[in-house]
Amino acid sequence: MSLTDPDRLFPIEPSARALARDLHTSVCDLPIISPHGHCDPRWFAENARFENPAALFVIPDHYVFRMLISQGVAPEDLGIPRVDAGQVETDPRKIWRLFAQHFHLFRGTPSAMWLNHSFEHVFGLNTPLSAETADACYDHIEAMLQTDAFLPRALFEDFNVEMLATTEGALDDLRWHRQIRESGWSGRVVTTYRPDAVVDPSFEGFAENVSQLGALTGEDTSSWQGYLNAHAARRAFFKSFGATASDHGHPSARTADLSQAEAADLFQKALRGTCSPEEEDVFRGHMLTEMARMSLEDGLVLQIHPGSRRNHSAQMFARFGRDKGFDIPGRTDYVQDLRPLLDAVGMEPALNIILFTLDETTYGRELAPLAGAYPALKLGPPWWFFDSYEGIKKFREATTETCGFYNTAGFNDDTRAFCSIPARHDVARRSDCAYLATLVRTGRLSEAEAFELAHDLSYRLAKEAYRL
Amino acid sequence: MSLTDPDRLFPIEPSARALARDLHTSVCDLPIISPHGHCDPRWFAENARFENPAALFVIPDHYVFRMLISQGVAPEDLGIPRVDAGQVETDPRKIWRLFAQHFHLFRGTPSAMWLNHSFEHVFGLNTPLSAETADACYDHIEAMLQTDAFLPRALFEDFNVEMLATTEGALDDLRWHRQIRESGWSGRVVTTYRPDAVVDPSFEGFAENVSQLGALTGEDTSSWQGYLNAHAARRAFFKSFGATASDHGHPSARTADLSQAEAADLFQKALRGTCSPEEEDVFRGHMLTEMARMSLEDGLVLQIHPGSRRNHSAQMFARFGRDKGFDIPGRTDYVQDLRPLLDAVGMEPALNIILFTLDETTYGRELAPLAGAYPALKLGPPWWFFDSYEGIKKFREATTETCGFYNTAGFNDDTRAFCSIPARHDVARRSDCAYLATLVRTGRLSEAEAFELAHDLSYRLAKEAYRL
Amino acid sequence: MSLTDPDRLFPIEPSARALARDLHTSVCDLPIISPHGHCDPRWFAENARFENPAALFVIPDHYVFRMLISQGVAPEDLGIPRVDAGQVETDPRKIWRLFAQHFHLFRGTPSAMWLNHSFEHVFGLNTPLSAETADACYDHIEAMLQTDAFLPRALFEDFNVEMLATTEGALDDLRWHRQIRESGWSGRVVTTYRPDAVVDPSFEGFAENVSQLGALTGEDTSSWQGYLNAHAARRAFFKSFGATASDHGHPSARTADLSQAEAADLFQKALRGTCSPEEEDVFRGHMLTEMARMSLEDGLVLQIHPGSRRNHSAQMFARFGRDKGFDIPGRTDYVQDLRPLLDAVGMEPALNIILFTLDETTYGRELAPLAGAYPALKLGPPWWFFDSYEGIKKFREATTETCGFYNTAGFNDDTRAFCSIPARHDVARRSDCAYLATLVRTGRLSEAEAFELAHDLSYRLAKEAYRL
Repeated sequence: MSLTDPDRLFPIEPSARALARDLHTSVCDLPIISPHGHCDPRWFAENARFENPAALFVIPDHYVFRMLISQGVAPEDLGIPRVDAGQVETDPRKIWRLFAQHFHLFRGTPSAMWLNHSFEHVFGLNTPLSAETADACYDHIEAMLQTDAFLPRALFEDFNVEMLATTEGALDDLRWHRQIRESGWSGRVVTTYRPDAVVDPSFEGFAENVSQLGALTGEDTSSWQGYLNAHAARRAFFKSFGATASDHGHPSARTADLSQAEAADLFQKALRGTCSPEEEDVFRGHMLTEMARMSLEDGLVLQIHPGSRRNHSAQMFARFGRDKGFDIPGRTDYVQDLRPLLDAVGMEPALNIILFTLDETTYGRELAPLAGAYPALKLGPPWWFFDSYEGIKKFREATTETCGFYNTAGFNDDTRAFCSIPARHDVARRSDCAYLATLVRTGRLSEAEAFELAHDLSYRLAKEAYRL
Repeated sequence: MSLTDPDRLFPIEPSARALARDLHTSVCDLPIISPHGHCDPRWFAENARFENPAALFVIPDHYVFRMLISQGVAPEDLGIPRVDAGQVETDPRKIWRLFAQHFHLFRGTPSAMWLNHSFEHVFGLNTPLSAETADACYDHIEAMLQTDAFLPRALFEDFNVEMLATTEGALDDLRWHRQIRESGWSGRVVTTYRPDAVVDPSFEGFAENVSQLGALTGEDTSSWQGYLNAHAARRAFFKSFGATASDHGHPSARTADLSQAEAADLFQKALRGTCSPEEEDVFRGHMLTEMARMSLEDGLVLQIHPGSRRNHSAQMFARFGRDKGFDIPGRTDYVQDLRPLLDAVGMEPALNIILFTLDETTYGRELAPLAGAYPALKLGPPWWFFDSYEGIKKFREATTETCGFYNTAGFNDDTRAFCSIPARHDVARRSDCAYLATLVRTGRLSEAEAFELAHDLSYRLAKEAYRL
Repeated sequence: MSLTDPDRLFPIEPSARALARDLHTSVCDLPIISPHGHCDPRWFAENARFENPAALFVIPDHYVFRMLISQGVAPEDLGIPRVDAGQVETDPRKIWRLFAQHFHLFRGTPSAMWLNHSFEHVFGLNTPLSAETADACYDHIEAMLQTDAFLPRALFEDFNVEMLATTEGALDDLRWHRQIRESGWSGRVVTTYRPDAVVDPSFEGFAENVSQLGALTGEDTSSWQGYLNAHAARRAFFKSFGATASDHGHPSARTADLSQAEAADLFQKALRGTCSPEEEDVFRGHMLTEMARMSLEDGLVLQIHPGSRRNHSAQMFARFGRDKGFDIPGRTDYVQDLRPLLDAVGMEPALNIILFTLDETTYGRELAPLAGAYPALKLGPPWWFFDSYEGIKKFREATTETCGFYNTAGFNDDTRAFCSIPARHDVARRSDCAYLATLVRTGRLSEAEAFELAHDLSYRLAKEAYRL
């Protein structure tokens, strides 16, 4: 029995399906370009065995545990660590059983497709997961994890990953990246510069973080110019570990372009912790423009991931901390918010700014019109909840007519679930091939163009957008 | 000649259509669960004949008369009663002819499908309604209405309604429900607690209403605590007539969780009629949280129907009053607005809050992410203008990937058009079966899962969500 | 080789495709009704040859050059004239080559479909445009342009245009329209009254413009009443050149209905240039209501095109001026914003207000509910970025269920790209036929209704909505 349909996500009508299948066949063996994500570089540095099936598939994956929580399962019973280090379930088999027993909740979700893909194509399972099969599946995966073929580097190679970017904070020492490099392993794992903790005055310990930034770079970060220099130095340091991009996770797409004197004043206020929320927002927004200016110097691609209202549940945040599936999207206004940044650098063809969104209403109204005009802008792939068949379909249908394919930046998986990487790229390639086949069969594209585009969307555009 | 296509709403591609048909066959004879709506309990209490075709299909149905008004037909000519009791058309046959003459306006609308379904499957008509056939159709329906088979209770049974909830204001004496119960009739018709008139300070006669609430319950509703007690008492009274839910029709999804002292102060202000619009909004919002707390006590399900800008046309409101088809949806922000409520009770697995929306942009961005995280939340079916094939398709496509099927609450028809109930449930079942068949044929679901889900979506989820 | 698929835009499934083809066959030869657009009346007045392929297809078409700019092509190299009259490329062949070399950027866009349609069906080309074929295509088109068959009036007739509306400012002397009329040519080219420059206090030279309005009409436009009289006079003048409509391009859908005294005061402030931005907005909004009142007198249809944030890039605006592809849509709130206008005149069946939008989220939530209730409202076709297959599909799917087909106003092309007119109407007719065929094949419409609707949507509704 197969957990995955070989024709999954292709159009149903036979002639469109046949073409989608041919398009997919032409790209399904291309190497994976993973230019944005949250895998732990330590895995590839140490190349230690993954602990157990629950630690691999359940505990770290907020897509998975949020769904169980939404149906009344207690986070503690899923082994989610508590902030106060209070007791939670530690038996991975019990956690796995709870997961298996609720597996029907994922029907129709991308998680189900990613998990089944991993179960079947990574671990060779062919039994649907359920309460009845939980132990057998656990034992099977557990046994696999004991083998050398399932060590992180072996999987990386088996997945045919050409490059994978992780994301580290500006203060990170990049020790694991150093260890990877020094190990002589040929896998290409690079970092990404994520300075939220040192550009967002509302971040826990902002002033302390900035001071640490100074210590790391030898710059006087109590001054605005020293602070900018320190960023430039860290960016260079990250570049030396392969970084080709920075990433910015702001609550909105707000940007600003203050005078240097205004920015310097605001920076001092931020250090003193006396900014109003509005001033914090302006400072964050101004820093995006500063980062873009640095990008013009050092060539790093600027990624903006705005619009998540983080830690929506005070109770979950107090008990379990960040990134526990309770970050909820909100409306985002790109047209108004990006204007200062775009007035400063938007017409620069040498700059690559990649925009993401959690607000699908902006695809056709704001993002495609912007990306179809400003040379500096590209659209990132559907993000988070929208990294899915319907999400990709909606993205293509809403953006292509206005900004075409070539103002989009290929796919990236943005995941911390390593084993889902092949599945996610496969879903993206299938969904794009389905869209292309539909365009051909409705006379909107020639077959030759579709084959070229299938390759572009699966491989080339990501490499170019991220300067790999 | 048939007014309805036996394969209506199924996918066009033959293999998907065949599966959708099989799925539909498996659920089309399930009893109807109608846990939210606006039928008049008096019909079932008195079991009197429906007056005439116009009184049944035109005069009370705002879907129908708003369309005719939009094309220049005067409300008076449709027999819509005037607030000032001024003269309007009283000849039902003339009203019916006007309706028939404009029937082409409904092409492509759910109203056309509901009406044709009723004409054919309830009344046995097989002639398309038009100016030419108006009289013949009228006479046919009129003759049927004279027969016992078309009495309200007979239709209720013929429609295979397992249960039907009506909606009554907090001050209602539930006399018709009492009469139904005392009649010994076996049909299950229950009430729903709708306290808008006693929780919304901007409601006509709020203070008077609250005072009447006190009189009904023997509580001193001039005090905050007495007011809360009175709610608890009325909820218990409604429960004794079968209520399993309350319902709240607020202009926005705004909630608040004030301290009891603050709430008591605001309540006094509301009684004095001195609240600002903002304070009125906060009070309404706080009362949602109080209702949720009571739900934790008494088990009533909390329904929130927000986002309608009521009585948009001052002229229509002045001349014809409420509910005349001029309530227009507005943007709604669930992420921000529900936060106080969710911080108070959102993590309670014992609570059922069912959210509705008139803003489809919130499905993927807000509602599914929220319902896919908070145990207390479920999503109600597409509401009002979106209770339709496209509405249901959009709802499933936008929510399933993020919150799955099991955070949704099945279907409810929310109608005051009794004869449309079988049609509406049929449209919902067909639309869901079409969606499920599409998932199967694109490899996103197994056939076995689809059959189980068809049953869940048509029957089980509504019963569970409403605790029936 | 064909540049266009004869079955383009039809459903893929064979039975739906066959029906869509039959529907399209029944309407594809209907005359073109073009009741709103921006063609230059001078073309038809002088009937001079079009200059060259670049001047025809590239330089004036912001859909085209914005896409090239977005990929780093300098506007100067495309011959876009600079505000400071600085040097730009003047060799049309070089511009054409640059265009051809980037033609792949348009894959999947409506521009590609319009251009290929024009190349093949207007100019008889059958070679796909590319860097390699650039010169051959240029020479071919250039040769055609030398022939009498490609003079503006000949093309107008060849395109089977029954009527075409241009758009002129309130101060325009309509000399080209006069010349057309005096020429005795039988082509029906009419004007449209576009008073933005004399109703928007923020417009460059507002007071001067109003004074000129007085000079043109002999009214004292320094008084509110004189100003209104002058509008009435200009409307009558435009009507004498065939105008059946006015058009209003405001930043939002804001309307107001001030007392005459308030309006007069605000007008004085506007003349003095002392309005706040808020007051400017109110004045513009009030003028929509005044225009609607005049429409009740003189019968002109009122078109509202709101929601574009014009000249988003300060750099582009400073260097190249208006209408250079950097107008970006923004969120628009019709429910709140139109209320004053609708309270004043919305229930008038004798009035035709045609609403457009660049915010697709309003189709289902706001526009269809409004148009399905108010007699004065009709919905214009998808506009600008949404004048496309997906745009039309989304429009029909989101509006039909709520307001039906008969509250929509047929198609208009809104273009300044003359040769794209047949292509645009063909796309609209095909897209509508595809939608109708889908309705029939899913049991939502009968075939007979679909054929009638195909004619209505392609021809009749536009004539009726615009009173042609």
